[in-house]
Amino acid sequence: MPTAATDFAERLDRCAEDTEAVLARLLSDTLLPEEIARPRRLMDAMRYSSLGGGKRLRPFLVVESSAVFDVPREAALLAGAALECIHCYSLIHDDLPAMDNSDLRRGRPTLHKKTDDATAILAGDGLLTLAFDIITRDELHKDANVRLLLTRALARAAGIGGMVGGQMLDLAGEGRFGDREPVDVARLQQMKTGALLRFGCIAGAILGQSPQRQYQALDDYGRALGEAFQIADDLLDVEGDAAALGKQTGQDAALGKTTFVTQLGIDGARQRVRDLLARADSALSIFGPKGDVLRAAAHFVAERKH
Amino acid sequence: MPTAATDFAERLDRCAEDTEAVLARLLSDTLLPEEIARPRRLMDAMRYSSLGGGKRLRPFLVVESSAVFDVPREAALLAGAALECIHCYSLIHDDLPAMDNSDLRRGRPTLHKKTDDATAILAGDGLLTLAFDIITRDELHKDANVRLLLTRALARAAGIGGMVGGQMLDLAGEGRFGDREPVDVARLQQMKTGALLRFGCIAGAILGQSPQRQYQALDDYGRALGEAFQIADDLLDVEGDAAALGKQTGQDAALGKTTFVTQLGIDGARQRVRDLLARADSALSIFGPKGDVLRAAAHFVAERKH
Repeated sequence: MPTAATDFAERLDRCAEDTEAVLARLLSDTLLPEEIARPRRLMDAMRYSSLGGGKRLRPFLVVESSAVFDVPREAALLAGAALECIHCYSLIHDDLPAMDNSDLRRGRPTLHKKTDDATAILAGDGLLTLAFDIITRDELHKDANVRLLLTRALARAAGIGGMVGGQMLDLAGEGRFGDREPVDVARLQQMKTGALLRFGCIAGAILGQSPQRQYQALDDYGRALGEAFQIADDLLDVEGDAAALGKQTGQDAALGKTTFVTQLGIDGARQRVRDLLARADSALSIFGPKGDVLRAAAHFVAERKH
Repeated sequence: MPTAATDFAERLDRCAEDTEAVLARLLSDTLLPEEIARPRRLMDAMRYSSLGGGKRLRPFLVVESSAVFDVPREAALLAGAALECIHCYSLIHDDLPAMDNSDLRRGRPTLHKKTDDATAILAGDGLLTLAFDIITRDELHKDANVRLLLTRALARAAGIGGMVGGQMLDLAGEGRFGDREPVDVARLQQMKTGALLRFGCIAGAILGQSPQRQYQALDDYGRALGEAFQIADDLLDVEGDAAALGKQTGQDAALGKTTFVTQLGIDGARQRVRDLLARADSALSIFGPKGDVLRAAAHFVAERKH
């Protein structure tokens, strides 16, 4: 008999597989009938960085928040693929020598190590642009207003007031532009990592044209999940197993970064995660049993070991 | 009594001023009420690279193609500003050391020289993302389907099959990734520079919900104008006045690049421009006197001295 935990793991795996298939189709050469294989180097680079792995947590949030409102799975997977394109582009650009200068990601060479910086910059630009091609497609929803709301929400989550702005604050906090600038960790991470995760959670409400109260509930849930995700990340950097993580630990301390752990201490950070999980559970109560998978997702995110 | 030429110059200037005002408003700090001045470095960088000059040719094409269909000027200016954000981001990323490694643009230090590579990468990402925030706004058109068509057309023009793909082909043709790859100049430039110019020309037809024949006419016009623009650019690199251009000439030859001039010779290139102008004029004939400004725009682009 499957337990709730194995059921959750199966759903997560199935979504990852489906997302992989959708992305592979979106990034296939048939996308470019006229150009034939000419920008092949670009397509290869985009495929290298967006196919072949990852938990696909962001698409999973889109798919499961959509399931609450019985949004067709195919539409949710497309929206999830657009969100994943944004996530993948951000990793490519963040890994560049001018940014975090990372050589490895998920145990493989980062794109600029595998190819070169120019190719990596363009592949990131290409994925970011492709996301907005995907998110506007007719298959997402028959009502153009819904697709527009979703498109704008994605642009906001990814932009100056979201991910890009958060990354800038993060670099400033490391002292990259002179003196270290003071960091409001909660604010910074709400932008840098939280905004895209939150988008995944509200995407279902937008596609499902939910009542305002239910939208608000997913918004609250998404904010709590986003912060819990980041605190778990900060805790793993201090306590995690480098082998399981597939990356070095202790990086934050080496950079002298302000994190949730440096601000709250380990015990305080753990307590904060518990509080956030309670907030996420409470936000989901409005959905009854239909919120079970999202509830499990928050716990999965907060308690993950890698 | 104003001549047609001074009338054209005045329209171009007025559009540049209006575009500047719209961009300044879109990039003002009031955009970010919650974040207050925190990602100020990012906003400053985006302003540095998108305000303060340029002919604003792409917004002009949006505004004038929109005027043909009596689209409200405010809507056209917003669409033009979104297009200009894409153009400005592409210049920032192209100037990076990993790409063209340019120190000067329009007589000023390029953004990465003025700041640093990380800031330039993020400012480019921010402008690209902002374009999709702007282009979806309600003020552009009351019909959401129209805004979606425009959004997708912009994503296509800027993406793999358009500008980003063209830039990749250009770098490959320079031999940046090993042996020089063979270059189909017309194809490459249709993607690299032509796609955004063409978008400017069809934007009016989309916003004006024009009949298919008129859309097709602007599409033909836009393709001819885009190619003429690039040939003029290639000719200026051979024959132009560096002082008037505000940049070094002879760059293409120094890089051993395949250009329209190396393929057609100077006389052949000039003849090709004349043919393209005839094609542009002919495409516009469907609009009668309403096509006069666009006709003048093609001649302006093809015969410019800087």
